[in-house]
Amino acid sequence: MPDTTAPAALDPVLDHIDATLPEALDRLMALLRIPSISTDPAYAPDCARAADWLVAELRALGAEAAAHPTPGHPMVVGHLPGRGPRVLFYGHYDVQPVDPLDLWHRPPFEPEVQDTTAGRVIRGRGACDDKGQLMTFLTACRAWKAVNGPLPMEVVFFFEGEEESGSPSLIPFLEAHREMLGAELALICDTGLFDDRAPAIITSLRGLAGIEVTLTGADRDLHSGGFGGPAANPIRVLSKVLAGLHDDTGRVTLPGFYAGVPEVTADQLASWDALGFDAEGFLRSVGLSRPAGEDGRRVLEMLWSRPTCEINGITGGYTGAGFKTVLPSQASAKISFRLVGDQDPDAILAALRAYVEASVPEDVDVTFEDFGAAPASVMNTAHPAFAAARAALSDEWGMDAAFTGAGGSIPVAGYFQSILGMDSMLIGFGKTDDGIHSPNEKYDVESFRKGARSWARIFDRLRG
Amino acid sequence: MPDTTAPAALDPVLDHIDATLPEALDRLMALLRIPSISTDPAYAPDCARAADWLVAELRALGAEAAAHPTPGHPMVVGHLPGRGPRVLFYGHYDVQPVDPLDLWHRPPFEPEVQDTTAGRVIRGRGACDDKGQLMTFLTACRAWKAVNGPLPMEVVFFFEGEEESGSPSLIPFLEAHREMLGAELALICDTGLFDDRAPAIITSLRGLAGIEVTLTGADRDLHSGGFGGPAANPIRVLSKVLAGLHDDTGRVTLPGFYAGVPEVTADQLASWDALGFDAEGFLRSVGLSRPAGEDGRRVLEMLWSRPTCEINGITGGYTGAGFKTVLPSQASAKISFRLVGDQDPDAILAALRAYVEASVPEDVDVTFEDFGAAPASVMNTAHPAFAAARAALSDEWGMDAAFTGAGGSIPVAGYFQSILGMDSMLIGFGKTDDGIHSPNEKYDVESFRKGARSWARIFDRLRG
Repeated sequence: MPDTTAPAALDPVLDHIDATLPEALDRLMALLRIPSISTDPAYAPDCARAADWLVAELRALGAEAAAHPTPGHPMVVGHLPGRGPRVLFYGHYDVQPVDPLDLWHRPPFEPEVQDTTAGRVIRGRGACDDKGQLMTFLTACRAWKAVNGPLPMEVVFFFEGEEESGSPSLIPFLEAHREMLGAELALICDTGLFDDRAPAIITSLRGLAGIEVTLTGADRDLHSGGFGGPAANPIRVLSKVLAGLHDDTGRVTLPGFYAGVPEVTADQLASWDALGFDAEGFLRSVGLSRPAGEDGRRVLEMLWSRPTCEINGITGGYTGAGFKTVLPSQASAKISFRLVGDQDPDAILAALRAYVEASVPEDVDVTFEDFGAAPASVMNTAHPAFAAARAALSDEWGMDAAFTGAGGSIPVAGYFQSILGMDSMLIGFGKTDDGIHSPNEKYDVESFRKGARSWARIFDRLRG
Repeated sequence: MPDTTAPAALDPVLDHIDATLPEALDRLMALLRIPSISTDPAYAPDCARAADWLVAELRALGAEAAAHPTPGHPMVVGHLPGRGPRVLFYGHYDVQPVDPLDLWHRPPFEPEVQDTTAGRVIRGRGACDDKGQLMTFLTACRAWKAVNGPLPMEVVFFFEGEEESGSPSLIPFLEAHREMLGAELALICDTGLFDDRAPAIITSLRGLAGIEVTLTGADRDLHSGGFGGPAANPIRVLSKVLAGLHDDTGRVTLPGFYAGVPEVTADQLASWDALGFDAEGFLRSVGLSRPAGEDGRRVLEMLWSRPTCEINGITGGYTGAGFKTVLPSQASAKISFRLVGDQDPDAILAALRAYVEASVPEDVDVTFEDFGAAPASVMNTAHPAFAAARAALSDEWGMDAAFTGAGGSIPVAGYFQSILGMDSMLIGFGKTDDGIHSPNEKYDVESFRKGARSWARIFDRLRG
């Protein structure tokens, strides 16, 4: 029974985390076994099961908790009283689809702790993104509670089940529950170690907007002998359209695209240079050698502070084995934009639509399907929690923690700002080779253990 | 029992064709039921079955016939003695793949005669290309034999099973069997009525060369947040490569592409203009309105006398439902060229390969797969058979038959010239809406009936 009259102690909490690691891994693996794929309606019952599992886990911590129904998957909300600042901890219990399944070495929802040459890992879909990361925080709470009793802050727990599928229920839920969810600061564990080795607090995120473009020429597939020449080929039209999106220096050509994009200061570039990022190694690790993108920009600068226009998928005509001399009726491409600064995602999607419509012959039809739009976010690092967290992370990892940017987008951080007026502190322990969104996802056991210990240290410093 | 002492009569043969049409359609449908898809190895036994079916059909005509094995699908060769010129009749018993299967209204290999607002049609894969067309000739032979006995020419029948998949066994077989196959003239029934209404003898064909290009960037699919910007995206690279193949006037940019392309004479253009081709109707029939291709060229001129570079298929990244923010590892495209005049297909494929390799970043790998290369062919219409056929067709169709060009490629005609020194006379009865190479292929019963009658009339005129 913890002695709640004595000052709360940090070291016993750290020891407790280390000593009870096997049980914590078991709990994580129970959550990993639930195939909570949000984008596929066939797994909706499993998403509900994962929500219920977290409700039970929160209640075991002493929190009031419930799974709130939505038009989509449930939102898990919990509340744990405590003396100190009121913070919200966010995570998501849904996971990415698993295709291509034949590239997994073991079933994605049969998690396992494995020995590798680089140490022990937890293997399974969601091991990193986001279940493993989410559980570092709950593990720290459980350990603090076991040793010290009440946490040194009041915690609102908020777990959604649609992050991998565009979060359609999120904005209405935030708007309807401002009081229940509002806090001084949000803590989010869904990012990675800087350069796979150094603790980092992410203070800016790129935004994201997506759209699918479908071009239709003839009303049926045509024989390329009988029609080749005078008949418009949607694949050729689409290639020209896509090729025209970037100039020869790698800049996006859409009118107004760079409105709201801040030019990074020399000081900021210098501080990023000082991080010692191994750009060649970063590219080499995935079989590349030459930085693509905008001429004259550093790799880190591009990832953290420059917007992109990318093509995530393209299809048209005959794509099977062998050859078919067809002029296809249709071709389509999925395009997404990573956004920075004050870029307006809706304006950019409108510019894309206008550009495509102006670029195609009059007898080629164009249809669009939007897939979400969220602006970039930049955090206000003046809140004392940021300094506290930086010191705590430096203690745990034995090196200075950095404030960094991020290439990815976590739209919820933007919505916390715009709807709840709340900044987010993004701290995570993932690694580049975790393979999130890919087959054979894993999470290092050391990331899990040191992650939980990092949160415990942050709790200690938040105590003031 | 035909009276073989009397002069051979034409009208009874025509009547016999009309009277026995139901039985002829039944025979055709038996051949259509065999799924002889040559490009897919799973259907190799069915290709052999189709070959055997034709051997039996030829033997029923009184011909000696056999299926000759090759490294691929068998070649059917038959011989029917007769008094008159020695001609070779060529056809192919293999058919195009059926995808997309979900667009067929009934199974592609369950043929049926159907009533439509435009008359009766034979529905099924291969109904036109090439089984229905091939059977017009055999039907004429069967009727002539029933009425008159021996045919007024000596016929070598030659059916291959790889026309839809690049004819890999054809050239070696022709080279190995020059004596068995050599004749004064080849007759080929694999083309269409001019403008869907007028009988035509095709006297020039475009050539064909195909190649698949695959680009590989990173050694795995990447997360577009974590890598978007500095990581090369093979879809973007491929789009630029493909877009660069044509300039803004529609000309192909490959160096040397137009070497050997004759400029059509004003006389030739005038004679084509005189055919009364409805270019707007041609495009409108497939849901288009604006001629694509080279600026300033007529539709017919482009189809018959201009070379093309087309993209028949493109694929890369995530192409399923919804969205996936992936930077794919690979992207690929299938490219084919229609050739005219003396264009050298091998030189053009080499120029394409050189262009692609010079256009990609050094860390993006390129692989190619060739899919056949055949030059264009132009026939020598001085052979008396051309005038005879023209008169015969004019009699059957009630209007002057034309010598025309063709947009498509029938490489065997070029090989007959280069290997056997033999010209080909291409006469066919297909229509634009037959949907060859597409779902719901059909062949008009009237094309089948009048086609068989046309051949009978040609036999009569060959008799001299």
